[in-house]
Amino acid sequence: MFKTSGIMENFPYQQLKDFTYSVFLQMGCPEEDARQAGEVLLSADLRGVDSHGVARLIGYVRLWEAGRINARPKVKVVHESPSTAVIDGDSGLGLVVAPVAMQKAIEKAQAAGTGWVAVRNSNHYGIAGYHAMQALQHDMIGFSMTNASPLVSPTFSKERLLGTNPIAVAVPAGEQPPFVADFATTTAANGKLEILQRKEQEAPNGWIQDATGKQSNDPNELKKGGALLPLGGELERGSHKGYCLGSIVDILSGVLGGANYGPWVPPFVSFLPLAADPVGMGLGHFFGAMRIDAFRPAEEFKANMDRWISRFRGASPVDGHDKVLIPGDPEREMEAVRRKEGFPLLPPVVRDLQEVAAKFKLKL
Amino acid sequence: MFKTSGIMENFPYQQLKDFTYSVFLQMGCPEEDARQAGEVLLSADLRGVDSHGVARLIGYVRLWEAGRINARPKVKVVHESPSTAVIDGDSGLGLVVAPVAMQKAIEKAQAAGTGWVAVRNSNHYGIAGYHAMQALQHDMIGFSMTNASPLVSPTFSKERLLGTNPIAVAVPAGEQPPFVADFATTTAANGKLEILQRKEQEAPNGWIQDATGKQSNDPNELKKGGALLPLGGELERGSHKGYCLGSIVDILSGVLGGANYGPWVPPFVSFLPLAADPVGMGLGHFFGAMRIDAFRPAEEFKANMDRWISRFRGASPVDGHDKVLIPGDPEREMEAVRRKEGFPLLPPVVRDLQEVAAKFKLKL
Repeated sequence: MFKTSGIMENFPYQQLKDFTYSVFLQMGCPEEDARQAGEVLLSADLRGVDSHGVARLIGYVRLWEAGRINARPKVKVVHESPSTAVIDGDSGLGLVVAPVAMQKAIEKAQAAGTGWVAVRNSNHYGIAGYHAMQALQHDMIGFSMTNASPLVSPTFSKERLLGTNPIAVAVPAGEQPPFVADFATTTAANGKLEILQRKEQEAPNGWIQDATGKQSNDPNELKKGGALLPLGGELERGSHKGYCLGSIVDILSGVLGGANYGPWVPPFVSFLPLAADPVGMGLGHFFGAMRIDAFRPAEEFKANMDRWISRFRGASPVDGHDKVLIPGDPEREMEAVRRKEGFPLLPPVVRDLQEVAAKFKLKL
Repeated sequence: MFKTSGIMENFPYQQLKDFTYSVFLQMGCPEEDARQAGEVLLSADLRGVDSHGVARLIGYVRLWEAGRINARPKVKVVHESPSTAVIDGDSGLGLVVAPVAMQKAIEKAQAAGTGWVAVRNSNHYGIAGYHAMQALQHDMIGFSMTNASPLVSPTFSKERLLGTNPIAVAVPAGEQPPFVADFATTTAANGKLEILQRKEQEAPNGWIQDATGKQSNDPNELKKGGALLPLGGELERGSHKGYCLGSIVDILSGVLGGANYGPWVPPFVSFLPLAADPVGMGLGHFFGAMRIDAFRPAEEFKANMDRWISRFRGASPVDGHDKVLIPGDPEREMEAVRRKEGFPLLPPVVRDLQEVAAKFKLKL
């Protein structure tokens, strides 16, 4: 494991955008797909979710090298009803498949009030929030979720059967910025464990268990057969609720559209084998869009969301904290800084990007 | 506070069903509504959620006496699209309004693939799970949520702005029983605090904070200005995620359909005043139904759910536990026992029921 003692390098947004675009082009993606994939990937760094941004670029490249990503997928609707669709991602980049599926959900909502799209045969799709937020400009509430590599043990289980299975919900407001919730259904996302590994610090209680199922504070436990824990962390603190949430995401993202689910979900890392007995195709996502005015006039709703937001932001804070935040506030603050100051990348991330650059004869 | 040292009395299901039916009739409900209200209420006791069952009957009666419940509501659709509707509950019992709304969601799903119904101007609706489970017999996935009296503080807030805002999701399987998740979006539901009060035991960490926002173990803290905490319980353990979940339920149940939301939600107890400046009408719910075959053939889906369920149930358990459960298992086990053995009611609950009986000149 590396140390944080290394100097962080700052990269401007546009430079990384141009670079990721070139990498996806070199992988054989059509121009529009390369642009889209880069935009989704970098939206993670912009919003401060560094584990899901350019740090993952080399992972996508390795999956492509292993033949697990199709750079020129024929993404198609395989089943539909007035308010639903199932999309086959043809093993494409989730970064490319997901925006097509979210767009389909929005179109369904335009016609039927709401649109719900299950996706099979896809790969990792970046941050959940990016996709949910596509609904906002249409005065719709957006939903996005995905299953993921099994790293999480259900309550009472030694085995890892679920991914960190995130949920994102984006709700438009009027004068206030939108409400954007985007969270893993575990106590802590895997990216937070990686930070502790680098800092050589212990994990708080409730994040992980060891291979026998005992609570552990060792951030390297997952390499030794341990597991992340569902939100709640232990039964007494409601971990069965986090287990419910992760399961709901898995069923909607995996079982409903015909993707793999539970322990059969394909791993993100190319060095781990695929399940020998797949129960579906690739990895799965689930998207939703609800047209506000299918319920009440959009302006009326947005005025009430403004009131909701200002009441919550204006709540009396506990000692030691300046203010109460609403979901989306921390990411917005981060984005404002990073658009101006660029992205601080850790030395190992820079080394990975240089490896990718060398592979495709590009300049970083 | 009473003690558990009192002898529990056992009441057969049918006896309590007849009694609650008579009480709702005496309140002026039409026969069909009285039957429906009793069934929903008792489904909580059957499933072991004692805080939401007959123990609450006196609360509904008091709200009715205070003029806050309309026993003969004209429940009507006030807005709709192919896959959505908004229903005005006309201040009716949530126990009666919610089944009408869930039925509307199911009808929408039959025609459009999915149906989503926001409800305003309602009251407390019993357990969330009952309503979600109505979708199962139609080979649909059911969703149910509601906002509730503000008892929960968002992360960093001293003030109580959210209810325990439950989410229920019911998913049909084939040979296996259905997957039924039904949980408050707090670390622990208020009913669990009440049990600790009766037992004069301390609450675990992460359940409550005192009036200044400091973590507390006193189960009576809510009477002194304290609050329940969102699932996660503290920031380090992801309480911001529980806050997100409770907020999503509040927005869909309250803001979307024009009900009150956040701190404006009407209290369940009749002795607390309504907000002087309501932002909507009554309390709000949100229901959804998704037709499985709007995504893939129902038999195929159910065969995969069977596989999901048996894989999770068959997972290797941690030491000290026999098996891994799936959401819905504990409630099913409880229901089997209680249908046979009746409901054990605590002396204070029996006293409340006797008070209700006397009020309406009924025999318990």
